[in-house]
Amino acid sequence: MLHLQSASSERWLAMVDEHLDEILIDHAHCEKKAAGCAMNLMFQYVEHQPLCRELSEIVEEELEHFGMVLDLLQKRGIPFRRLKPSRYGRALNDLVRKFEPHKGVDRLLIAGIIEARSCERFDLLSRHVKDRELAEFYAGLFESEARHHSTYVRMAKLFRPEAEVRSRLDELMAEEAKILAETDPLPRMHS
Amino acid sequence: MLHLQSASSERWLAMVDEHLDEILIDHAHCEKKAAGCAMNLMFQYVEHQPLCRELSEIVEEELEHFGMVLDLLQKRGIPFRRLKPSRYGRALNDLVRKFEPHKGVDRLLIAGIIEARSCERFDLLSRHVKDRELAEFYAGLFESEARHHSTYVRMAKLFRPEAEVRSRLDELMAEEAKILAETDPLPRMHS
Repeated sequence: MLHLQSASSERWLAMVDEHLDEILIDHAHCEKKAAGCAMNLMFQYVEHQPLCRELSEIVEEELEHFGMVLDLLQKRGIPFRRLKPSRYGRALNDLVRKFEPHKGVDRLLIAGIIEARSCERFDLLSRHVKDRELAEFYAGLFESEARHHSTYVRMAKLFRPEAEVRSRLDELMAEEAKILAETDPLPRMHS
Repeated sequence: MLHLQSASSERWLAMVDEHLDEILIDHAHCEKKAAGCAMNLMFQYVEHQPLCRELSEIVEEELEHFGMVLDLLQKRGIPFRRLKPSRYGRALNDLVRKFEPHKGVDRLLIAGIIEARSCERFDLLSRHVKDRELAEFYAGLFESEARHHSTYVRMAKLFRPEAEVRSRLDELMAEEAKILAETDPLPRMHS
């Protein structure tokens, strides 16, 4: 369903256990960035009404999650702060082709890929972390990330035929697995 | 309550009557831009939690309004399209001082000034336009624009003392009245 070509590593899970607070802070940043990314896509393809409406709903949902993670941080006395981002997002965005309609397809698919990876990791975390409240929180986010993944892939098909989108998704998913396999020393939601 | 230093002109109302469809399209753009502006402020001041939460709510509300204007356009068979923006937003943003904390104060106050002007114009339109559905629509938006204006001014006071913020607001409001007095030939929500 998620089209991912690799499973998250034991190394990553071990890093989570050691830096849970930092992972939570990064998670807040991820939700904010997801909202910003959907908003940027809205601005780019503003004449495309069906796209704009779907993206607008995604922005709202991501902002709601952002607020939820901020609540968790506050409750735990963890100050929200800037973090150096992992290499993941930048490396994926470098794969975006330069010209339309391919640029649009790639931007939507990459947004969808990030949702898919988040979804896989939330599922993993919900079964892995000992902290009950956090485990339930991650389990609660699983469904919307899976749905956003499908929505982004569906939106890409508004730009190009299904077979072409599917084949590009396979290519990008292979790259995503490679990017994630390169060791990133930072404890992040996508490292 | 709105701190505006001028009332909208008869010239502007006459332009609305002649170009109602274009004003509606521009209105959709304004709601989208208001959401984008609040989102940009969130990214800029992300470590400031109370600010982020207020801004996040504004983004959600503006996006909801954006959807409502898109609905109206669709219902009336008016295609949403790109429009050359009025000079208003650019001219106001040129007034932002370069360094913090003044930069933050100015960005928040200018966002608040735009909300105040929208508020004044929605009130005016709700009493002026013959189209009943539109008149009610504008009346319905009045309250949230007024509230956003107050919220932005209140947020600016998180950066600098109240007296200083109030005096800067007066300065910027005087500039706003000047900008609006210069004839802008485009029929726009803020021309």
